[in-house]
Amino acid sequence: MLSLDKVFDAQKVLKKIIRETNVVRAYGIASDCELYLKPENLQITGSFKVRGSAYKIAKLSDEEKAKGVIACSAGNHAQGVALAASKNGIRSLICLPDTAPISKVEATKGFGAEVCLVEGCYDDAYKKAIELRDRDGYTFVHPFDDENVIAGQGTIALEVLSELDKIDAIVVPVGGGGLISGIAYTVKQIRPSVKVYGVQVTGAPSMYNSIRDGKIECLDSVRTIADGIAVKQPGENTFSLVRDYVDDIALVSDDEVASAILALIEKQKMIAEGAGAASVAAVMFRKFPLEGKRVVSIVSGGNIDVTSLSRVIDRGLRNSGRSSSLLIELIDKPGQLKDISRIIADCGGNVTGVHYEKGITESVNGCFLRIEMETRNFDHVNLITQSLRSEGFKIV
Amino acid sequence: MLSLDKVFDAQKVLKKIIRETNVVRAYGIASDCELYLKPENLQITGSFKVRGSAYKIAKLSDEEKAKGVIACSAGNHAQGVALAASKNGIRSLICLPDTAPISKVEATKGFGAEVCLVEGCYDDAYKKAIELRDRDGYTFVHPFDDENVIAGQGTIALEVLSELDKIDAIVVPVGGGGLISGIAYTVKQIRPSVKVYGVQVTGAPSMYNSIRDGKIECLDSVRTIADGIAVKQPGENTFSLVRDYVDDIALVSDDEVASAILALIEKQKMIAEGAGAASVAAVMFRKFPLEGKRVVSIVSGGNIDVTSLSRVIDRGLRNSGRSSSLLIELIDKPGQLKDISRIIADCGGNVTGVHYEKGITESVNGCFLRIEMETRNFDHVNLITQSLRSEGFKIV
Repeated sequence: MLSLDKVFDAQKVLKKIIRETNVVRAYGIASDCELYLKPENLQITGSFKVRGSAYKIAKLSDEEKAKGVIACSAGNHAQGVALAASKNGIRSLICLPDTAPISKVEATKGFGAEVCLVEGCYDDAYKKAIELRDRDGYTFVHPFDDENVIAGQGTIALEVLSELDKIDAIVVPVGGGGLISGIAYTVKQIRPSVKVYGVQVTGAPSMYNSIRDGKIECLDSVRTIADGIAVKQPGENTFSLVRDYVDDIALVSDDEVASAILALIEKQKMIAEGAGAASVAAVMFRKFPLEGKRVVSIVSGGNIDVTSLSRVIDRGLRNSGRSSSLLIELIDKPGQLKDISRIIADCGGNVTGVHYEKGITESVNGCFLRIEMETRNFDHVNLITQSLRSEGFKIV
Repeated sequence: MLSLDKVFDAQKVLKKIIRETNVVRAYGIASDCELYLKPENLQITGSFKVRGSAYKIAKLSDEEKAKGVIACSAGNHAQGVALAASKNGIRSLICLPDTAPISKVEATKGFGAEVCLVEGCYDDAYKKAIELRDRDGYTFVHPFDDENVIAGQGTIALEVLSELDKIDAIVVPVGGGGLISGIAYTVKQIRPSVKVYGVQVTGAPSMYNSIRDGKIECLDSVRTIADGIAVKQPGENTFSLVRDYVDDIALVSDDEVASAILALIEKQKMIAEGAGAASVAAVMFRKFPLEGKRVVSIVSGGNIDVTSLSRVIDRGLRNSGRSSSLLIELIDKPGQLKDISRIIADCGGNVTGVHYEKGITESVNGCFLRIEMETRNFDHVNLITQSLRSEGFKIV
C-alpha cells in the first residue's frame, strides 16, 4: 500500500543515490504567474526516473537482489534502472528495441546495465523482457505501475514543499502516470490546498482520455516529440491515484512543447526533453487557471537527442516568428535581389539564406526566390511582407 | 586600488542584485580529474558580467548616478550594465554596432537600457559612446579594465572558495581579462596554493601573446565562435594582474570549444556560450597538468544565439565521430543503395540522410551518393568505411 510513510522512507533511502535538485525561479517564460521549475533534468541520469527505480530496487529481498532485475525501455527508465542496480551492487538487464537511438543504448550501458537489443518495437522488447524474467527469475521493474516506484517519484513533492512556501499549484507531465501519482498523493496528504495539474501531449492522450471516460483506455498509437510520455495505456494503480488526487489534466501540442524547450534554452540556459518541457508549455500557453499564482512546473528530464534538439530549435524559432521564410516570385529583370535585400534590411530583418528555386512562374524566364530571415516576431514578418508587396513583389 | 576588502564589499553590495550560482559536480566530461562547474551561465542576464558592472555602478557618486551611465558592447556587458543600472534606478545608454544580432538588442532593451545603434563595427560604436560621454556627462562603464569591475568579478572566487574544499585549480576564460583578474587576485590572497589557469581561443590570443611577450599587444583581428572573449587587446590593469597572479594561460580551438558546448548539453543539460565552454574545453583537452586534481571550471555565460547553437551542435557531433558523412561513387547498376544500406545497418550505423549528387564519375551514368549517418565514434565510422570497401564500393 502506498502511504506517506513510504514516501518518507523513499526519501531516506534515496539520499545516497540521487541528487536533491533545487527549485529555481524562471523569469521571462510565463508573464502572468510566478513560475518556478523543479529541474529533474539535472537529476543524475538526466531524469526523475532513477528515484522510483532506485527505491524499488532497494526494497527487494536479498534473494530477489541476487537474481538481478530486468526492465524494458528505450529511454529514461532504462538509465534509471541501470544506475539504481549498479548503486545497489546488483545485476540489471535492459531490453531495448533495436530501433532505439545509439546514444540511449550507450548511456544505458554506461550506467552499468547489460543490454539486450530486441528486433522490432517497444512491445517486442517488452515481451522479450517478460520471457527472460520467467525463464531466469529476474525481478521486473515496471516503469510506473508499482507502488514503490510511485513512492520514489513522490519524494519530488517532499522536496518541493520543503523548498518553497505558499505554492498554489504544481504542474506535472503525465505518461504512464507514475510521477504525477507520487506527487499528487504526497501533496494532498501534506498540503491539500495545493492544486496538482497533469499535462499530456495531443499525440498521446492516454491518461487524459481514460480520466475523461472514467475507465482505462488504450491508444492504438502515439506520436509526439515528447517520447518520454508517449505511453499507450495508464497503469491500474496510476489511473486510480490520478482520478483521486489530480485536480485536472490538459493537453499541449508538439509545437507548444517545442516553444517551451526553446524558452528553457534561452531564458534558463537549460536543456529539457519534450516530456520535461510539457509542464512548462502548459503554463506558457495557459492551459490552467494560474493567473497571479505561484506555480512549480516539474521539468521531468533532459535526455533529448542532440539531433532532435536542432530540429526543435528550428521549429521553436519558426513558431515564435523569429525565423521565417518568404517565397517571392521573380520576373526576368535585373536588380531584383538588390531591391529585396534593401527592403528587408530597411525593415530591420536579417537575411540568413537565399535560394533560387525552379517552378511555374508567369514568365518563362521567371523563378522563385526563397528568403530565410531572422525576425523579431510575427508583426515584424508582416511588416516586411507588406513592404515587399507595396513595392510590387509577389509573395507566394 | 584593488584590495581583498573591496572584493568583500562587492559581495555585500551584489547580494541583492545577483544570484549566487552553486558549484555543481560534472560527471562524464573529464575522465582524468574531478571536475566542478561554476555555472555563471545561470547568473541573471546569463553571464557573470552583471557582477562587475553592478558593483561599478553602485559605487558611483550621486552626481554621477544622476547623469547616468554609458557602455559599448554587443553582448553580455550590455545586458549587465542595463540590468545593473535599472536595479540602481539610473539611466543607461548602450551603444551597439548595427550588425549586432536582433536577439541581443532586444535583450538589452528588455533589461531597461536605451539602445543607440551605430552604423559599422564595435570600434565605431565605441567611438560614438566616448563622444556621447564627453558631450552629455555619462559615466563610461568599461567592460573589464576598471578596478571596481574587477572587484565585482572577484566575488566569484569568494563563492567558489566557500562552497568547495580542497580545490587544486580554477580554470577561467580570458577575453579582456576582467574575470580572471578578479578571480586570480582574490584566490591568491586567500588560498595561494590554488592554481589559477586562463584560457583563450586560438582565434583571439591577445592576453596569451601579451603575457608571452611581456608587453601589451593588440591583435589586428579576432575570429572565433567564442564571441564573448573575442577581444583584441588586454587592459592595462588586467594585463598586470594576470602577469602577477595567473599561473598559466593556454589556447583552445573553436572545434574544442564546440565539443565542450556539446558535452555540457549532453552531460549537464546546460547551455554555455563559446566563451563559457572554453574553460571546460581546456580541461577536456588537457591543456593543463590537472590529472587527479579537483578542478573548478568557470562557465562564464550562456548567451549563445540559438541559430549558432544548431551549428555548434552539428560541428560537435562531427568532431566526436557521432555524425558522419560518406561520399560513395556509384556505378550504373541497380540495387546499390540496397547493398549500402544493408552494410551500414549490419555495422550498427543509423542512416539519417541520403542525397544523390552529380559529379564526374568513371561511368557516364554514374553518380555520387552522399550518406549521412549517426555513428558511435570514429572507430565505428572506420568499421563502416572498411566494410563498404571490402564489398567493392569506392569511398571518395
